[in-house]
Amino acid sequence: MGEKRRGKYTITFEQPPLIKSYASVAGQKEAEGPLADYFDMICEDPMMGKESWEEAEGALQYQAVLKALDKAFLCPEDVNYLFAGDLLGQTIATSFGVMELQIPHFGLYGACSTMGESLSLAAMAIDGGFAERAVAVTSSHYASAEKQFRYPLAYGNQRSLAASWTVTGSGALVLESADLGSKQAADQCVRIHAVTTGKIIDYGIKDSQNMGACMAPAAAFVIGNHLRDMNRQPEDYDRIITGDLGRVGQKILFELMREEGFNIEDYHMDCGIEIFDAETQDTHAGGSGCGCSAVTLCGYIMKKLETGEWKRVLFVPTGALLSKVSFNEGFTIPGIAHGVVLEKG
Amino acid sequence: MGEKRRGKYTITFEQPPLIKSYASVAGQKEAEGPLADYFDMICEDPMMGKESWEEAEGALQYQAVLKALDKAFLCPEDVNYLFAGDLLGQTIATSFGVMELQIPHFGLYGACSTMGESLSLAAMAIDGGFAERAVAVTSSHYASAEKQFRYPLAYGNQRSLAASWTVTGSGALVLESADLGSKQAADQCVRIHAVTTGKIIDYGIKDSQNMGACMAPAAAFVIGNHLRDMNRQPEDYDRIITGDLGRVGQKILFELMREEGFNIEDYHMDCGIEIFDAETQDTHAGGSGCGCSAVTLCGYIMKKLETGEWKRVLFVPTGALLSKVSFNEGFTIPGIAHGVVLEKG
Repeated sequence: MGEKRRGKYTITFEQPPLIKSYASVAGQKEAEGPLADYFDMICEDPMMGKESWEEAEGALQYQAVLKALDKAFLCPEDVNYLFAGDLLGQTIATSFGVMELQIPHFGLYGACSTMGESLSLAAMAIDGGFAERAVAVTSSHYASAEKQFRYPLAYGNQRSLAASWTVTGSGALVLESADLGSKQAADQCVRIHAVTTGKIIDYGIKDSQNMGACMAPAAAFVIGNHLRDMNRQPEDYDRIITGDLGRVGQKILFELMREEGFNIEDYHMDCGIEIFDAETQDTHAGGSGCGCSAVTLCGYIMKKLETGEWKRVLFVPTGALLSKVSFNEGFTIPGIAHGVVLEKG
Repeated sequence: MGEKRRGKYTITFEQPPLIKSYASVAGQKEAEGPLADYFDMICEDPMMGKESWEEAEGALQYQAVLKALDKAFLCPEDVNYLFAGDLLGQTIATSFGVMELQIPHFGLYGACSTMGESLSLAAMAIDGGFAERAVAVTSSHYASAEKQFRYPLAYGNQRSLAASWTVTGSGALVLESADLGSKQAADQCVRIHAVTTGKIIDYGIKDSQNMGACMAPAAAFVIGNHLRDMNRQPEDYDRIITGDLGRVGQKILFELMREEGFNIEDYHMDCGIEIFDAETQDTHAGGSGCGCSAVTLCGYIMKKLETGEWKRVLFVPTGALLSKVSFNEGFTIPGIAHGVVLEKG
């Protein structure tokens, strides 16, 4: 055990699980943004041919998993576990979305950090010897999230400048044990080398229109502890990538990291900032949602790693832990983040 | 890997993780039921001194974890991971309940099956060599669940005879690696020997007042596959224990199991049936909720295993995957279950 744990919050893998394949499904607005070329499937119909927003979001997950399996010439029966989640109450988009796949199911809730959580647990299941293959999938949908957390779309409420725009999309990754193929094949794949698990961190912020500020301390906790646990510096990573802090949260993160003695400004990227063009797309602080980091990972980030342009990335999806009830009752909005190290070979 | 996987849905552990300690916190109505003597803490105030039902439920989790740690002379810093969940939207009782413990956190959603899911993942983290200790905790609260899924208490709606009564309570277990102590010490502990992971199964039932019927097929799937994967018969277990099928779901389970060629009637127990005295407590089909199987496990079931009265138990918490939205939109209620084998030594 000693050799798998590093420091207080990080584990490394003896045989880093491979990312065998991945796929992203995104909505029309996302396809009009800067990352358009990286998505596998664009859904022009925000209803996905379904009758409710929740069903539509479920369909995003279903399509993302099918597409990822398809790319690896696999079928659902080849997968031991599905690690899946979304933002909605009782993660209902997930339950109805992936049901038809009939893969043994672990339902997760980590708000917008869920892609980090699902990759962490899937990698542990594989390196622990409990699975040959596992799928990690998350989603979000602008309309189902607005309905769940804010106002019905038809109400046309005004959005604050610190507010983010929930991404309509889903990303799925097929993880595979390195035991299954040759060492040479494994060296050609992007692999999960380490995981740093976050805590719930509450800075007392109550503004649900400023989730970047709620989540920045949780991201700083994971990044700082990861660097200390691994005895590394920010420059050991081509990118340190947060989920959806947006422009407001990014500034806070930089400041918190400086207080911890790390300057990450030259290496930081935020999926929420990258996914939309704030100037032309009216998305204010940036994109958000479980789908935001998921589609950015299962497209842009994976491509950069596969081509070798980036050698090592610390991927840190970030989540704001609020519900309609907790918000209406005047509670704070704590954050959580999960870090995953991706490297080729 | 081959030696850890058994059949299609089951894994066994090389060094079965120990249940080092456990604790249960229950409400007043539960303390008036048949299992009263087995709870560690009874909360006479259903608000737990808090200002909302959600906070009260969070406090149940907090107390259960503290008590379980206390029994093992451990503090939160001794724990590598917390696997936790509840029934509420965005699992908000969990987020606010366990935050103060500051343990690296994996949030789960498996409806009332979550105790099975959390034990499964915690055991995998330990036997995989990623953690020395992990805590599994779940909760439910009658009032927060009624508010979330049905009607405000003050509305005084009538309950159907097939309806269950959500248990107010939380159970927490501290799992520990067998590597930490002597073999002799490990042999004295109840340990998790195997895990069978369920799929989401939908029999097309839409009646949220009859959740036993929704969940019975998922329980039958796990029990049937477990017995086949392990090449065992029902009589190899002292008890096969479902979470909260209640009286209605139990009958359906028996029938489904008979169709699969297994007669489990002499070995079956349902936490939902045991926890209340239906005749005097007006609980109709029985108890339900994440807390139902959790407090029954962290009391009655663990005591029976520790004293040696039972040698081997298959614990199968069962969940109904519905949300207020999915129910109002006329969707079916699929079920899920997770199986965990508990044996002393």
